[in-house]
Amino acid sequence: MRPNAAFVLQIKETTVTTTPRITVDPAIVEQYLMTMAQFGAHGETGVWRTVYDPQWVAAANQYVAWCQDAGLETRRDAVGNIWGKLTGSEGGKSIVSGSHIDTQRPGGRYDGILGALGALIAIRTLKEQFGQPKRTLEALAFCEEEGSRFPGAAFWGSRAITGAIAPDDPAQTRSYADETVVDAMQAIGLDPSRILEAKRDDIDAFIELHIEQGPILEQAGLSVGVVEGITGIRHYVVQLTGDANHAGAFPMDLRRDPMAGAAEIISGVISTAHRMGRPAVTTCGRMTVDPNGPAIVPRQVTFTVDARHPDPAQRRLLYSRHEALIAEVAARRNLDVSWYLTHDLQPIICDPGIVSLIEDAAREQGVPCMTMTSGAVHDTQRMSEISRVAMIFVQSKDGRSHTPDEFSSIAHCTAGIEVLAAALYKLAY
Amino acid sequence: MRPNAAFVLQIKETTVTTTPRITVDPAIVEQYLMTMAQFGAHGETGVWRTVYDPQWVAAANQYVAWCQDAGLETRRDAVGNIWGKLTGSEGGKSIVSGSHIDTQRPGGRYDGILGALGALIAIRTLKEQFGQPKRTLEALAFCEEEGSRFPGAAFWGSRAITGAIAPDDPAQTRSYADETVVDAMQAIGLDPSRILEAKRDDIDAFIELHIEQGPILEQAGLSVGVVEGITGIRHYVVQLTGDANHAGAFPMDLRRDPMAGAAEIISGVISTAHRMGRPAVTTCGRMTVDPNGPAIVPRQVTFTVDARHPDPAQRRLLYSRHEALIAEVAARRNLDVSWYLTHDLQPIICDPGIVSLIEDAAREQGVPCMTMTSGAVHDTQRMSEISRVAMIFVQSKDGRSHTPDEFSSIAHCTAGIEVLAAALYKLAY
Repeated sequence: MRPNAAFVLQIKETTVTTTPRITVDPAIVEQYLMTMAQFGAHGETGVWRTVYDPQWVAAANQYVAWCQDAGLETRRDAVGNIWGKLTGSEGGKSIVSGSHIDTQRPGGRYDGILGALGALIAIRTLKEQFGQPKRTLEALAFCEEEGSRFPGAAFWGSRAITGAIAPDDPAQTRSYADETVVDAMQAIGLDPSRILEAKRDDIDAFIELHIEQGPILEQAGLSVGVVEGITGIRHYVVQLTGDANHAGAFPMDLRRDPMAGAAEIISGVISTAHRMGRPAVTTCGRMTVDPNGPAIVPRQVTFTVDARHPDPAQRRLLYSRHEALIAEVAARRNLDVSWYLTHDLQPIICDPGIVSLIEDAAREQGVPCMTMTSGAVHDTQRMSEISRVAMIFVQSKDGRSHTPDEFSSIAHCTAGIEVLAAALYKLAY
Repeated sequence: MRPNAAFVLQIKETTVTTTPRITVDPAIVEQYLMTMAQFGAHGETGVWRTVYDPQWVAAANQYVAWCQDAGLETRRDAVGNIWGKLTGSEGGKSIVSGSHIDTQRPGGRYDGILGALGALIAIRTLKEQFGQPKRTLEALAFCEEEGSRFPGAAFWGSRAITGAIAPDDPAQTRSYADETVVDAMQAIGLDPSRILEAKRDDIDAFIELHIEQGPILEQAGLSVGVVEGITGIRHYVVQLTGDANHAGAFPMDLRRDPMAGAAEIISGVISTAHRMGRPAVTTCGRMTVDPNGPAIVPRQVTFTVDARHPDPAQRRLLYSRHEALIAEVAARRNLDVSWYLTHDLQPIICDPGIVSLIEDAAREQGVPCMTMTSGAVHDTQRMSEISRVAMIFVQSKDGRSHTPDEFSSIAHCTAGIEVLAAALYKLAY
C-alpha cells in the first residue's frame, strides 16, 4: 500500500540557535499526569472521566489549583473551560495553548489531558525562567472534546469559545443515559443560558499539544511531530429497521433482517476505505441491537460509521461511496433506513507560519521532529475558525489511544512540552 | 427457492367420527390469556416475564389458582414447574400437556402461555364434560424455556423434569445482570439443592400446544398444524478480539478490527443458510461491542449465531460451514477467536402414533389441519428423552413471535385447544 505523501518522514536537521534553552522538569510532568490519572481511574491504567461528572469536576478543580499555584490569572467560563492567563506587557490578542480534560469511556492517561497540562507547565516554565512575556499567554483546559457522554456535545468547549453552540443545543443534546446537557450543567452550577458569554474573539494563535494516537512517530523513532493539516471527518449514525421474527420458525427468504443488512454495509464501508489506501479510514465502533436476543431476528440495528480523509476530493468520494452502499443494501434487503450526521468537520490546513515556527523551535531545542497530518480530529479544528492554529504530536506506544493501554513516555511528553514552550516563547517573548 | 418437503401442505379431509364433540368456551380462552398478559405487561401488547421475577411469580400463582378452581390436584415442583393432576381410574403413567409461562424480553401474549393455559382448559373441559378419565391427565406450566433472563438456563423446567440439570448448574448459570440461578431461586423460596426431586419417570405421553411462530399455517389458511418433527439447533457465542485503536489515527492496513471480522462472519453465515434453502435458518440476533464508542476501533465483539436444520446430515453441513468460516475469517484478519455453545439440541421425530392420533382427533372435531416440522425448539424436545411426544401448532398472524406484535386469534387458539382436548380424550378416556 502506497503511503500518502503526508505520512512520509520529513526529519529536520537540528542546528544551533538564538533561542534560549528551555528546560521542562520531567518530574513535574509525571506528577501532574499521574495525579490527573486518579480522577476517574478505571482499572490499572484507564481513565473514565466524562464531562460534568464528579471525576471531571475534581480534575477541573485540580487544574484551577495548579494554574493558581503558577501565578496565573485563573477563571472558568460559562461551559466550564478553564483559562490560566499570564498577561503580556504589550497586551493585544492572546497566544493560547491547551487541550481537553475529558476522556473516552474508558480512555487512558494521556489523550487530551497531556495538552492541557503541557500548556500549563510550558507557561509556568516560561514565567519562572523568563518572567513576564510581551504578549499575553493563556493555558486552556477544554471541558469536553470526546463526546463520550453526550455524543452530540463533542467539541463542546471549543464550540462555546467559537460561538458554535446554538441556543437550543443544551436542551436537545442528550447523553447515552438520556440526560440533557442542561441538566448536567445545572447539576454542577453552570448556567446553560450564559453559554454565549464563553465566546472569544481575541485569540491570535492556538497551539494544541496532543498524543499522536497512531503509530507514525514510533515507526519513525521520533518524540515529536508538527501537524500541518487535520483530517476531515463524518460520523454517521445509521439505523436499519426490519421485522423482529423467530430465529427458527421464520424462513430466511421471507425475512427483513437488519443485522444482515448492517453486516453487509459494515463489511463494505471498511473494505472501501482499506482499498482507497492511507490515509482514508472508516470505522464502525458502536452498534446497538433491538431487542438483542439470540433467538430473535432483530427488529432494528443502529451503528456508527466514522469516515475520514484529509483530502477534500477523496473525502467526498469516500462519503459518496459509503452513502451509496448504505442506500443500495437497505433497498435490496427491503429494510427501512435512515441516517444522520453527529459530526461533519472539514479538513483544515494549519497556519504555515506557526508550523514553520514550531519546526524552528524544535530544531533550536535539539528535538528531532517530522511534519505530518492528523487522522484524529481535535479542538484545534474548531479553534481554526477564530484563530491561527497548529498542533504538536507526541509519540504514542503502539499507536494506541482511546483505551487504558495508551502510553506515552515521560521523556516523549517532556520533549513535546519543551517544543511547545519554545514555540510560545518565540510567539510571546 | 424449493420449499422443503416438510413444509408442503397436507390438508386432511374431515370425516364423521365416533369421538364426541368437545366444546371449548372461547370466552374462557380469552379471559385466561388476557389475565395472564397483565403479569409483566410491556407497552400495549407486550409481555416481559422472566423466570423467578415478581411478574413470573404472580403468573405462576394465577396458574395454581386456576388449576385449583378446576378441581385438579395442584403442586409446584422443586424448580417451580406447576402440575395440575386429574387422576385416572386405572392409574398408570400420566398423559401430560403444557408449555412454558416465561417470555422473551419483551415477548408477546401467546408464546408459551397459550400451551400452559390450553392444557389446563382442555383438562378442565374434559373433566366437566366427561368426568374422571381412565388414565391420569396432567396440565403443566414449565417455569422457564426461553433463557431470556439466564441464557444458560433455557429449558430449565423441562431439564429438571428429565433430570438434565447438573448439580453445579444453578450456581454456575448467570443472568445477563450477573445473578446466579441459585440466588434467584432462593429469593422466591425454592431450594436449588432439591432440583433432582423434580425428575419424573412416569410420563407416558406429552403433547405441547404452541403458537407456530412462522407464517406457514397462515399462508395455508389453517388454524392448526400437527408437528411431526422439531429442528436441531445450535447457539454459538462467538467472541472476536483485536486491538482497540483510534478510529482516525490508526491506518486501516495495521488494524486488528473485530467489528470487520464480525461483519464478514455474520454476512457469511446468513448467506450460507439462505443459499441452502428452507428449512435451514441462521440468525445473528445479539451483539455486544467493547468499548462501543463511535471513534474507537473495537477491542472485542461478541455475537450469537443461531443455526438450525431438522435433517441431521444437512445440520452437520450447516454447522461445519459456519465453523469453518468463523475460523478462516479470524485467522485471515489476525483476530483472536473463541466460541462456545449455549444450546445444542438434536432434531427429534415426534411419536408417529401420537401424531396420527392428533390428526384423527382434529378430523373428528372438524378442524382442518396439516402436518409440519417446527423450526423453533420447544420443551417437547427435552420431554422426548423420557416420553412419547408430539405438538400442536396454532396459526400466528404474519408468523410473528418473540415480539409484542405476536397475535393468534381466539378462534385459532380455541380450535387448537379443542384438538388438544380431543387428543387427550383419545389417550385417556
